[in-house]
Amino acid sequence: MSRKIIKPSPISGFPEHSPSIRAIELSWIDALRGIFESYGFCNIETPSVEALDIIAAKGEVDKEIYVLERLHKQDGDKEARSGLRFDQTVPLARYTAQHFSELVFPFKRWQIQKVWRGERPQAGRFREFYQADIDVIGVDNLSISFDAELVSIMHNSLTSLPFMPKFTVHISNRKILIGLCEALEIKDAPAVLRTLDKGQKTGIQQIDDLSWYGIEPLNDTMEAGINELSSVVGGLSNFSNVSVDLSIVRGLDYYTGTVCEMFLDDNPEFGSVCSGGRYDDLASSYINKKLPGVGFSIGLSRLFDYVKSTGSLEDAKRTSPADVLVVIPNKDLEALANETADTLRSRGIKTELFHAPQKIGKQIAYAQKKGIPYVWFPPFEDGGAHEVKAMKTGNQSEVSPDEWSVT
Amino acid sequence: MSRKIIKPSPISGFPEHSPSIRAIELSWIDALRGIFESYGFCNIETPSVEALDIIAAKGEVDKEIYVLERLHKQDGDKEARSGLRFDQTVPLARYTAQHFSELVFPFKRWQIQKVWRGERPQAGRFREFYQADIDVIGVDNLSISFDAELVSIMHNSLTSLPFMPKFTVHISNRKILIGLCEALEIKDAPAVLRTLDKGQKTGIQQIDDLSWYGIEPLNDTMEAGINELSSVVGGLSNFSNVSVDLSIVRGLDYYTGTVCEMFLDDNPEFGSVCSGGRYDDLASSYINKKLPGVGFSIGLSRLFDYVKSTGSLEDAKRTSPADVLVVIPNKDLEALANETADTLRSRGIKTELFHAPQKIGKQIAYAQKKGIPYVWFPPFEDGGAHEVKAMKTGNQSEVSPDEWSVT
Repeated sequence: MSRKIIKPSPISGFPEHSPSIRAIELSWIDALRGIFESYGFCNIETPSVEALDIIAAKGEVDKEIYVLERLHKQDGDKEARSGLRFDQTVPLARYTAQHFSELVFPFKRWQIQKVWRGERPQAGRFREFYQADIDVIGVDNLSISFDAELVSIMHNSLTSLPFMPKFTVHISNRKILIGLCEALEIKDAPAVLRTLDKGQKTGIQQIDDLSWYGIEPLNDTMEAGINELSSVVGGLSNFSNVSVDLSIVRGLDYYTGTVCEMFLDDNPEFGSVCSGGRYDDLASSYINKKLPGVGFSIGLSRLFDYVKSTGSLEDAKRTSPADVLVVIPNKDLEALANETADTLRSRGIKTELFHAPQKIGKQIAYAQKKGIPYVWFPPFEDGGAHEVKAMKTGNQSEVSPDEWSVT
Repeated sequence: MSRKIIKPSPISGFPEHSPSIRAIELSWIDALRGIFESYGFCNIETPSVEALDIIAAKGEVDKEIYVLERLHKQDGDKEARSGLRFDQTVPLARYTAQHFSELVFPFKRWQIQKVWRGERPQAGRFREFYQADIDVIGVDNLSISFDAELVSIMHNSLTSLPFMPKFTVHISNRKILIGLCEALEIKDAPAVLRTLDKGQKTGIQQIDDLSWYGIEPLNDTMEAGINELSSVVGGLSNFSNVSVDLSIVRGLDYYTGTVCEMFLDDNPEFGSVCSGGRYDDLASSYINKKLPGVGFSIGLSRLFDYVKSTGSLEDAKRTSPADVLVVIPNKDLEALANETADTLRSRGIKTELFHAPQKIGKQIAYAQKKGIPYVWFPPFEDGGAHEVKAMKTGNQSEVSPDEWSVT
């Protein structure tokens, strides 16, 4: 053939998975959502696009923003510039202010959406990736009990992920170091915290849960921090992998109390897989109300890519969500096979119907290739029995489509 | 206060919902996914972005494409231009070619993602919206049985949507009109079909299922079309809302056989809410293989917006996914309330814990405002019983957290 073929190739930084790997990614999203909803968090989605004056309000990341242009924009078309969101916090702030009168506070929401960062192409970093965020926003004040609750939720969320490696929760409270800076008459405490966060760790890492209670507060701020941290750690007492770590400060200026990062036990250098904390005021740029909150974010795509890179997902062969493949032994049995598949589906069993009467061996091989765990044979003759074969064991037994269930 | 407030406002064409409306949208996505997976369709996600030479290969829509630019791109940065996808078919073709060796054929996939179209701002049309697509792709050939299966799946999908109005499936086969054009020696049959699709309907609409079988084929193409259509309609015999409608042609040139559109009974002028058909070759631009397929798409956001506009969702008040709110009667009962909530969650019951010991009336009002159907009271005294109040009826009864379930 002489037609022109465009070789399709991946765009650097925009990950895309085969169906079997996507099935696991989807199971992660389901698991996270399941935990978030089990605590009563509602879902929101914000548009991919925000007005550029909103999205670029934070100077530090503006060079990473993707701006949209219509391919055939005409000179007469007046429209404000807009860009793709680079996180879910800026849109949450805008959303909360804009929908303020429709929301019930404390407003608890989960959000799992993609974000985009226009990293330089050679950097080998993700330019599109999922983040999984939870935040609780109050008006004027917000109970400290949420800090421990959100850490618990994220702890349980990570634990619920298939193939998730072991991790440890590192927790601190910014008021302790801010109070220390005050006591030392350091004026630009945020700059100190940023510096600490960038790698000059304090050397007082991982003080264990007992000894840090002995810290003597030098002023009210430190004392408030110690009290809050005690309360939060107390609320996490049923987890064995939580450690107080005063070197945790988080780079972003807006955190004002609890700060927390979670690290992989086998690879702490990978950086935090979940992080967040308490902030005093979410949306001061958009609304004349004080909206304190506490929020956490899992870098979902980044963590998933790590787990994939360790080889854990190599056995993933399931390219169909089906529990059962119903075979069509011959043309005469096509209607019965179809009816059997419908019966199984009506009972909540995910069922593929093979698409044509073909050799049974070929149909079984198809189930094998797609990782479908059971193959179903409608009766070959009138009055015969249905049979189902478990692919793992090879066992085959007589069953009824009205009664059988996946074991 | 003198700080500058940016008034946040929606960007035209980018819909965003309140939590209670989003909850219904999410239930739609869940319902569709549930049906798609019940037939064994796997999920894929493609990046939001495609290389511009791939996405703009179809001249007809190129003016609607959003192109990405990095805000602070430097002159030295060499990168190919890219744009946001405007449908899920172009990315599917690229994906299928690129991942060809990893896929099991027939490749059955579902995909519910957003697409973007750079409509002019004044048009009042969606610029970002969900599409819900299913396609089956074969190599060299693909059983005609899939045509009826996919119509069935989409029929069942729409039927499964909460608040979905009644609809009718209109179905035809392009070969009938193509054959007719051949018989009439009309050379540019696709142009005729496009013209018909644009509104000059044939006048042979909605011939009923019986009478069209009487059409006399004028050549082999017409005969093939009639046979295929008979077979597909035969496979849909258990639905009462399917009608053969030879005026259905679909505008896009690539359809070659079955074509189908679904219309709302109360508002056919709204246009099709689900459409699709059979095509001969999905990915000829990217791979030297013949990949015939059949696929359907629901314009999810557009349909959802319609249903919302009819007022059907006005009673939606559920802003929490929680089944139960556990109250904290007083500080002493906080730990017990927390433990009770954990017990309920461990049994799969979605449970909010109120965030502070406050007046019971205030806590019940919170459940009311969020549409949480049950309020749970831990025992006020040692040895007392747990009680649960059904918000709808006001009934309150003694229960055990280890046994109670949502009725």
